[in-house]
Amino acid sequence: MYDLIIIGSGAAGLAASIYAGRYRMKTLLIEGEFGGETSKAGEIANYPGVMPIDGYELMKTMKEQGKKVGAEFKDGFVKNIKREGHCFSIQTEKELFQSKAVIFAGGAEHRRLGLANEDALTGRGVHYCMTCDGPIYTDKTIAMVGGGDSSVKSLNLGAEYFKKAYLITMEKDIHAEPINLEHLKEKGDKIEVLTETQVKEIVGDKKLEKIILTRPFKGSGELLVDGLFVEIGFKPNVALPQSIGVELDEKGYIKVDSMMKTNIDGFFAAGDTVNHFGRFKQDITAAAMGTVAATSAYEDVKTHGANACEFHAQIIDK
Amino acid sequence: MYDLIIIGSGAAGLAASIYAGRYRMKTLLIEGEFGGETSKAGEIANYPGVMPIDGYELMKTMKEQGKKVGAEFKDGFVKNIKREGHCFSIQTEKELFQSKAVIFAGGAEHRRLGLANEDALTGRGVHYCMTCDGPIYTDKTIAMVGGGDSSVKSLNLGAEYFKKAYLITMEKDIHAEPINLEHLKEKGDKIEVLTETQVKEIVGDKKLEKIILTRPFKGSGELLVDGLFVEIGFKPNVALPQSIGVELDEKGYIKVDSMMKTNIDGFFAAGDTVNHFGRFKQDITAAAMGTVAATSAYEDVKTHGANACEFHAQIIDK
Repeated sequence: MYDLIIIGSGAAGLAASIYAGRYRMKTLLIEGEFGGETSKAGEIANYPGVMPIDGYELMKTMKEQGKKVGAEFKDGFVKNIKREGHCFSIQTEKELFQSKAVIFAGGAEHRRLGLANEDALTGRGVHYCMTCDGPIYTDKTIAMVGGGDSSVKSLNLGAEYFKKAYLITMEKDIHAEPINLEHLKEKGDKIEVLTETQVKEIVGDKKLEKIILTRPFKGSGELLVDGLFVEIGFKPNVALPQSIGVELDEKGYIKVDSMMKTNIDGFFAAGDTVNHFGRFKQDITAAAMGTVAATSAYEDVKTHGANACEFHAQIIDK
Repeated sequence: MYDLIIIGSGAAGLAASIYAGRYRMKTLLIEGEFGGETSKAGEIANYPGVMPIDGYELMKTMKEQGKKVGAEFKDGFVKNIKREGHCFSIQTEKELFQSKAVIFAGGAEHRRLGLANEDALTGRGVHYCMTCDGPIYTDKTIAMVGGGDSSVKSLNLGAEYFKKAYLITMEKDIHAEPINLEHLKEKGDKIEVLTETQVKEIVGDKKLEKIILTRPFKGSGELLVDGLFVEIGFKPNVALPQSIGVELDEKGYIKVDSMMKTNIDGFFAAGDTVNHFGRFKQDITAAAMGTVAATSAYEDVKTHGANACEFHAQIIDK
């Protein structure tokens, strides 16, 4: 029986483990994909207090801090959550754990275009992570569907590899951090921007061959590319919390108050799965939310005590 | 004319400078006391992403990050703020600056006991910062008025110096992070706790001699101590914002929404001067709020444009 189980090992989950450990809670963190999105983000230059660092290294530091204060870490993905009053039972592929409180920091997933061939060609020309898959396209031609800051950041990063890139946005303009936009412009002709354009078809049999555009570019409705990267935002992971009745806000994120409490007693959420600071989703805000969630979980477990929960836990076991 | 002036150089102000610089805003940070409370806090072990580090060093890293992206830094304390629509004029001891937006991150001050001799003996036996003044009491006896986490942390730190300490709390119990409480207990007899007790008088002529208690301890109503440290929380610095009509919440902190906006257009606040996460006030939450405030200021300046403000600025000059 744990005091607290944290689901997710991005900035929010890991920061929560540091505070929970310091609160001397018996804490387990179930990692999922280690480091969440941050570990795949490449260099992080804007985390206050840390000079530019690889995202994976930043996440490793946080894990080390959590371990140092006694939090336990396990590999694995959570498959199921059950709730019995103030007790939670958390099922991974192989193991069943129980806790008095849960912090859900399950992050968000890349949005997909929703096109016919997309699933079939994912990893065969269609990609969602430049840090991970950019090097495949060394000296090749790619297209990027995006237009927001992360697509621009990805292109700046990928420019080390690709020969040529097309940035395709449905908007009239690119919306990115000015510093990232400057870096994009420094690349010159290497990156061309197609505004008010969408991809309407992904063509290829076992491998991506070309994409069909909604608006002709240089007289042609199709674009021959070796790779297609998609960076059109994230969709919060909310299926598990929803399965125990956690309420969402109007944008589909987990609804929390300013102390990261959901509508379910003992169940807290933090990071990209909530919308606390609106569109602004950063490592620093995720980490802050994680520490707030840990503080709320600590208060909650202290208030409700152990006995009630252990009783319920026995019921769950049957 | 700056796009943004940040007032305060604690975690909130410095983090704001990093983001504002990245947003390519022409940014000035007026430091006040460099590093705010953090720079005096001794070791910071709970800042996610940074292994234990001296608070001053953490603040120096953030400043370096801000400088790297072009934010300017100036010594000095702000004496006066004037507002003319979307323009602000900020007066320090020596200089006058103007900006289109302001982030106020002026932090909070140590609360005082409010006793007769307190001001006169401050620095002469009465202190508010163990990191700063603890070494003065090497091999001596001190009393600490507190009972919350920061008083316990301070005593743990000060135990390297003092021979004996009395922790005086008006509460029935000590309320501190369990890990800090454990460290306190490890000190054994060196630290004695006086519960449900207050200091009612500070006695001394040019130097602290003793303190008078509301409840006798070991048969005596007075306690002979060489030093008295006071750690009873903070009072937010709100006088300057109030002078231009910024509203406070019911606890006396600056009232902000979740994007750190005050009721005054173009004026944002972050850190210990606001109460966004309630009693939970940490470097990580202050830094997060700073980045959020910078983002809101950026949106604000972008929306309102430069011209309107420069016109008003001329009026202020007259």
